[in-house]
Amino acid sequence: MRVVDLIVRKRNGEVLQQEEIETLITAYVEGQIPDYQMAALCMAIYFQGMNTEEVANLTMAMAKSGEFIDLSDIEGIKVDKHSTGGVADTTTLILGPLVAAAGVPVAKMSGRGLGHTGGTIDKLESIPGFKTSLSRADFIKQVNQIKLAVVGQSGNLVPADKKIYSLRDVTGTVPSIPLIASSIMSKKIAAGANKIVLDVKLGSGAFMKNKEDAFALARTMVNIGEEVGRETVAFVTNMDEPLGTFIGNALEVKEAILTLQGKSRGPLRELCLNLGAYMLSLANQVKEIEEGKATLEKLLDSGAALERFAEMVAAQGGNPEIIRDLTLLPQAKYQWDYHMPQDGYIHSINAETLGIAAMTLGAGRENKDSSIDLAVGIKVHARKGERRQKGQPLLTFFYNEQEKFEAAKKMIPQVMQISATPPKTLPLIYGIVTKEGCLDLNCSF
Amino acid sequence: MRVVDLIVRKRNGEVLQQEEIETLITAYVEGQIPDYQMAALCMAIYFQGMNTEEVANLTMAMAKSGEFIDLSDIEGIKVDKHSTGGVADTTTLILGPLVAAAGVPVAKMSGRGLGHTGGTIDKLESIPGFKTSLSRADFIKQVNQIKLAVVGQSGNLVPADKKIYSLRDVTGTVPSIPLIASSIMSKKIAAGANKIVLDVKLGSGAFMKNKEDAFALARTMVNIGEEVGRETVAFVTNMDEPLGTFIGNALEVKEAILTLQGKSRGPLRELCLNLGAYMLSLANQVKEIEEGKATLEKLLDSGAALERFAEMVAAQGGNPEIIRDLTLLPQAKYQWDYHMPQDGYIHSINAETLGIAAMTLGAGRENKDSSIDLAVGIKVHARKGERRQKGQPLLTFFYNEQEKFEAAKKMIPQVMQISATPPKTLPLIYGIVTKEGCLDLNCSF
Repeated sequence: MRVVDLIVRKRNGEVLQQEEIETLITAYVEGQIPDYQMAALCMAIYFQGMNTEEVANLTMAMAKSGEFIDLSDIEGIKVDKHSTGGVADTTTLILGPLVAAAGVPVAKMSGRGLGHTGGTIDKLESIPGFKTSLSRADFIKQVNQIKLAVVGQSGNLVPADKKIYSLRDVTGTVPSIPLIASSIMSKKIAAGANKIVLDVKLGSGAFMKNKEDAFALARTMVNIGEEVGRETVAFVTNMDEPLGTFIGNALEVKEAILTLQGKSRGPLRELCLNLGAYMLSLANQVKEIEEGKATLEKLLDSGAALERFAEMVAAQGGNPEIIRDLTLLPQAKYQWDYHMPQDGYIHSINAETLGIAAMTLGAGRENKDSSIDLAVGIKVHARKGERRQKGQPLLTFFYNEQEKFEAAKKMIPQVMQISATPPKTLPLIYGIVTKEGCLDLNCSF
Repeated sequence: MRVVDLIVRKRNGEVLQQEEIETLITAYVEGQIPDYQMAALCMAIYFQGMNTEEVANLTMAMAKSGEFIDLSDIEGIKVDKHSTGGVADTTTLILGPLVAAAGVPVAKMSGRGLGHTGGTIDKLESIPGFKTSLSRADFIKQVNQIKLAVVGQSGNLVPADKKIYSLRDVTGTVPSIPLIASSIMSKKIAAGANKIVLDVKLGSGAFMKNKEDAFALARTMVNIGEEVGRETVAFVTNMDEPLGTFIGNALEVKEAILTLQGKSRGPLRELCLNLGAYMLSLANQVKEIEEGKATLEKLLDSGAALERFAEMVAAQGGNPEIIRDLTLLPQAKYQWDYHMPQDGYIHSINAETLGIAAMTLGAGRENKDSSIDLAVGIKVHARKGERRQKGQPLLTFFYNEQEKFEAAKKMIPQVMQISATPPKTLPLIYGIVTKEGCLDLNCSF
C-alpha cells in the first residue's frame, strides 16, 4: 500500500477500505506517514467526503489509536452526552445529576474551554476543593455509588484525533463533516460510551453556521453510531443567542445550581429536559420521550437532582454547601450594568461576540496556554424578541481588571440590536436526528 | 498573512493575490512554510484551479525563486521549445540545428529522461566525447558563433519547482493544470526564453490522456506566456503511438541524423517542420507558417541542418564524423526481430508499453538513481493503420543483457494489436493554440 495511491483514490472520489484506513491511522500516529501526506488526504476528504461506512471505519480506527476505556464495571447502560460547543451552555452540570437521579450512570470525561466557548472542567474548578482528576478505580467506584462523576480527559485518549486535529487547524481542513464527525465520535467511543446523545449547535455563536451543514453533521454522527453499535441521537439546537443567561465559569455553576433548584426556567432548562429525556430513553429507563421529560421535571422539582449534584461535589472533594450558599463560589470584585439605550425589542443577541467579550474579561482562553479568571463573566438579562424599556438592565459585566473591562465594553455595540418591531424568533431545537430519521421539531418553549 | 488563511481562501475558490503568491513561494523555498501547508494548498488548487492571472503570478514567483538566466548577450529572439514528454520523440536534436540553420538562436537547456520517456541530455551523451556541460560564457559564445548549443540544466534553476514537484509527487497533486503549467513555464522563463513553442503530448504514451485536459493545459500555458510577455504557442500532438521509429538513446541520435539527412520521412519530420515553422515565425524570420515550413524543408534537403548539427557536436567536444558514420555511436551487442504473427492491420501501438519495454532493456531510468545503457532500445517497423503480412518484421530489440531482454520480450503482447480491418487513424497534430486562439488542425501527413 502506497499512501499516495490512497490520496489519489480519495481525490478521485473513490472509497477507502477499512484495512486501508486502519493502516493509515496507525502509521500516522506512529510517525510513519508524514504530515504532508495526511494534510493532502484531509483536503481531499474535505472536497470528496466519505460514505457512512468509510467515516465509521475512520472513527473506529481513530478511537482505537490509544487507550480504550472500559466502563463494563459500571452497572447499566452508559449514555454520554456531547455538545459541539456553545455560549452559556452549562447543560452538563445540570444533566449529569438530573439523569443520574433518574438512575442512568453518568461516567463523564469533559474538556476545558477554548476560544469563546466554555469547558465543563474549568467550570467545576470554580467549586472550592473540587478535584477534576480521579484514579480510574475511584472514578468507576464513584459512578457505581452515586451514578455520577465528571473528570477531565486523562491519559492517551484518541492520540490520532489530537494529531489530526492539530494538522487540520493549520491546513484549512477543519470544516469537513466526516472529519468533524469522526473526531467527536472517536472520543466518545474511546471514553467507553454505550450510547450517545449529541447537541449540534447551530448559529452565530457555533461552529456550524448553516442548517444544512448542522443536520448533515448530526446525520453523519448518528450513522456512525449505528455502524459501530453505539446508538446515537443528535439534536440540532439554536446557538444564535446564548443558551443560558450567564457566561463565565463560576457564573455558569451558579446558573446550573439555580436551574437544579427549579428557580431558573427558560431554554437552558428546556434543552436539559429534552436531552435528558432522550438519555433516559436510550438507557431504557422510559419508553416514551414525554414520560422521560415528566420524570426529569419531577426530579428537578423535588430537589433530588440538586441533591445528586451536591453528592458529586462532596465525593470529588468540593464543598457541597455551595448549593445553599452561592457566595462560596469565586466572586468578581466589580460589576457594571449596561442599560437599554431606548425602548424596543431585542432584535438579535450575538452569542459569539458575547462569548468573546466574556473571554476578554478573562473567562476564556485565547489559546491553550492562556490562564483564566474563574469569577468573571457576563449576565444577559433579555432574550431575543423580548421588549424592554429605556434604562432597564441588558447586560451585567462581572470583572476584576479595569483594563480587560474597558476592552470588553467596546464590544457592546456588536452584541445586540434593538428594533421597534418584534423580530422573527428562532426555535430552541431545530430538529432531532435518530436512527429512525429526523424529527424536525421547530419546538419552542 | 497567515498561510492557513490563504489555504482556506483557495479552498473556497477565491483568488490569491500576486503579493500573497510571491510570499508563499519565497517562504516555502526558504523552509519557513512547512510541507504540510503546501500539500494542503496544492490539493486545494487541484480542486479549485487558478485563474489566468493567478497562474501567471505563480509561474513568475517560481521562476524568480532561483537563478534567472540572462541571454541578452545572445543576438536575436531566443525561442525555446519544450515537449511534455513522449516516446521516440527526438525533435530537439532535429529542430535545434534546423532552426539554427534558419538563423534562429537556440540556447537550449535540456533534461534527462525519467520513466518511459527519454531525455535529450542522455541522448547527446551517446555521442563520443560530447560535453553536456559548458560554462555560461562558453554557452553564450557558442550560440553567438553557430546559433546552437544544447546543455544540461545547471545551477539553481527554479528551486521552487524542484521542491513543489517532489511534494506533489507524493501527495497526489501532480495532475493539476495550473500546477503543471506553472512548473513548465517557470523553467522556460528562468532559462531565459523570449518566446516559447510547446508540444503537449496527448495519448496513451503521454501524461495527458484526454483531449480536453491537453488543450486546457496548452491554453493555460499560452495565457501565462501572454500575461508575462513571453509569447507562447502550444501544439497538442499525438502520443498514442511512438512519434519516431527508434526508442533508445543512441538509436534516437541515429534517427535524428537520418532525418537531418532527409532519409527518414514521417511524422517525426512532419512535426519538426511544423514546430520549427512556428519557431521561425515567433522569431520574426518568416511571416507565414507555410513559408517557414518551405524554408526548413530546403535546409533539410540542402544538408545545411545536418551540417549545423555536426558543428554543434564538434563545438561541444564530440566527434562530428557520426553524421557520416553512424557506427561510431554505441552499438548493442545483440538484436532480435519480432515478426507479424499473421496478416493484418496494425490496429494500435501502445507508446507507453513500448517506452517501458525500452526502459526494461536499459534505455531508461526507473528512478532518478538508475543507470542507463545508451546503446539499447527498440525499433518499430510499422505505424498504426499500416497493413503487414505474416512474417514481416514488426519490432527490433537492440540489447546487451539477456535477462533484461527476456523481461522486455514478455511485454510484446501488450504492445500491439492486429486487426483484419483498418483502424481509425488519429491526426499527428490535434491542434495549435496561439494567442489568437486555437487552430484545430486535425492535419495528417
